[in-house]
Amino acid sequence: MKMNPEDAKPTAPCSSPVYVHNPHLDVMKDDILYHFGLGTGTHNLPALFGDVKFVCVGGSPWRMKSFTEYIAAELGMENPESEYPNICAGTDRYAMYKVGPVLSVSHGMGIPSIAIMLHELIKLLHHAHCTDVTIVRIGTSGGIGLEPGTVVVTKQSMDATFLPKFEQVILGKTVVRNTDLDQSLAKELLQCSKELNQFETVIGNTMCTLDFYEGQARLDGAFCSYTEKDKQDYLNKANEAGVCNIEMESSVFAAMCKLSGLRAAVVCVTLLDRLKGDQMNNSHEVLQSYQRRPQILVGYYIKKQLKARAVCR
Amino acid sequence: MKMNPEDAKPTAPCSSPVYVHNPHLDVMKDDILYHFGLGTGTHNLPALFGDVKFVCVGGSPWRMKSFTEYIAAELGMENPESEYPNICAGTDRYAMYKVGPVLSVSHGMGIPSIAIMLHELIKLLHHAHCTDVTIVRIGTSGGIGLEPGTVVVTKQSMDATFLPKFEQVILGKTVVRNTDLDQSLAKELLQCSKELNQFETVIGNTMCTLDFYEGQARLDGAFCSYTEKDKQDYLNKANEAGVCNIEMESSVFAAMCKLSGLRAAVVCVTLLDRLKGDQMNNSHEVLQSYQRRPQILVGYYIKKQLKARAVCR
Repeated sequence: MKMNPEDAKPTAPCSSPVYVHNPHLDVMKDDILYHFGLGTGTHNLPALFGDVKFVCVGGSPWRMKSFTEYIAAELGMENPESEYPNICAGTDRYAMYKVGPVLSVSHGMGIPSIAIMLHELIKLLHHAHCTDVTIVRIGTSGGIGLEPGTVVVTKQSMDATFLPKFEQVILGKTVVRNTDLDQSLAKELLQCSKELNQFETVIGNTMCTLDFYEGQARLDGAFCSYTEKDKQDYLNKANEAGVCNIEMESSVFAAMCKLSGLRAAVVCVTLLDRLKGDQMNNSHEVLQSYQRRPQILVGYYIKKQLKARAVCR
Repeated sequence: MKMNPEDAKPTAPCSSPVYVHNPHLDVMKDDILYHFGLGTGTHNLPALFGDVKFVCVGGSPWRMKSFTEYIAAELGMENPESEYPNICAGTDRYAMYKVGPVLSVSHGMGIPSIAIMLHELIKLLHHAHCTDVTIVRIGTSGGIGLEPGTVVVTKQSMDATFLPKFEQVILGKTVVRNTDLDQSLAKELLQCSKELNQFETVIGNTMCTLDFYEGQARLDGAFCSYTEKDKQDYLNKANEAGVCNIEMESSVFAAMCKLSGLRAAVVCVTLLDRLKGDQMNNSHEVLQSYQRRPQILVGYYIKKQLKARAVCR
């Protein structure tokens, strides 16, 4: 969809809508977002979500709730009298919270789980007529050759053979999709980390796998048919391909956000260095403090963006 | 494993342990089951889980809790004074409940999510020295040409090209694994359904996909590049290959259970007929009642098994 020059008047700032690419949706009476427990026939989506400008997604429901509390305090929008209600309380597939222009949604673990969430989220933003939305996955990952606690902002998401692609099977046939993320957004996030100066942040490639144990060359799964040396060789090859960390959602996240015109970033903390081990041996407290780092970075970015926009008006 | 005739004496029943196939585990001091919030160094797994004979798994945490309450009442083991505690309360990745010999675990959505759970579950059963364990996935699915509410017991799990295989990527290379399920267990479950006589149950093939929308030929995702006719052609081809229903976990479930020697079945109710539509239009109450059917069937099976074993002793 090309922008109409008439819409580009200075009083109407250039706005990019969220794209769905599905002609069938236009002829549907209602759209039920089944895994969210929401729908166009039951909820006024423009009224509920029309002002959303930032979406943060992460695997764990608790982490997305804690991010909501954190961002509310950062933006001075906290409500001491009430808890933040889970907008998806009608289902237990995902949890969703909203504070002002910031929506937080959990996505579970793995490509299929985040893909279901993203299909319904993209439709939600479309039905709500949202524009200029930035979306960030804040997650955890295994690092390669990095000090645990380092935050990685993803440049490209790679598959288990270190290629920057996501394979989507449609009608039994494999379609290859691009996994580039927004490079300017990645640089802005890196700059934010420098300004914050609280922890190390790098930009690098992220490997996205379909399995946590055998799929990530771990030696501690229920099954393991390879040696410690095989593992080290594989992880070293990944390292040579620019892989800084390994997680399980970035490839489909990058592919779907690109298709829908969402400005997207992946910001994951590394919980361990996979060259040195497989198990999460650090204390609960240390792991928790690591997990807060992507939240702190993205919270800072959102605050900075909102301040800049307020100045422009 | 063939039964040794010598082991068939009434006093020493033949017992099959749960197999891990990983020599590296033997040399590990502790094993942290990270996504369960459990570990060999922090929990006495044989004391907590040694008596487990049945494991039921399903996507939704609420459904697994409701199954626990149901099976407790069925087995006369309900505790009116206390709730069933979530054994995985230290994490929000999975929920786990136990009533006597029955363990219930949620697995989230999709192959990667259930694979992480199964790696840790198989290690848990191994560390707890469990024997003769039967495992059943009780889930929901989309049916093909079946009346909604029909229960399907899976014969073979097929991929999106209708082949009975699961591809596991290990060190960047694809390994093909078998997705056969226990045929005698499937027949026993069908017999139970006949005895119950409450709803229709069939044995058939189940297609397991990596995506709910484009991956299952739905017309209502955020993206759709095919026509209604393309969809019908694909689903009809699936039907011709013996596919009765479509879900997102059975292939890796079948493959991993087979590798670990667990007697396994997949019992899914169909929530809709995909030849007639894509959206879950039925009322919440109707969908809830459908979702209880696999629980009722598996609850009946477990009760019958426990009665038969009590008689043998």
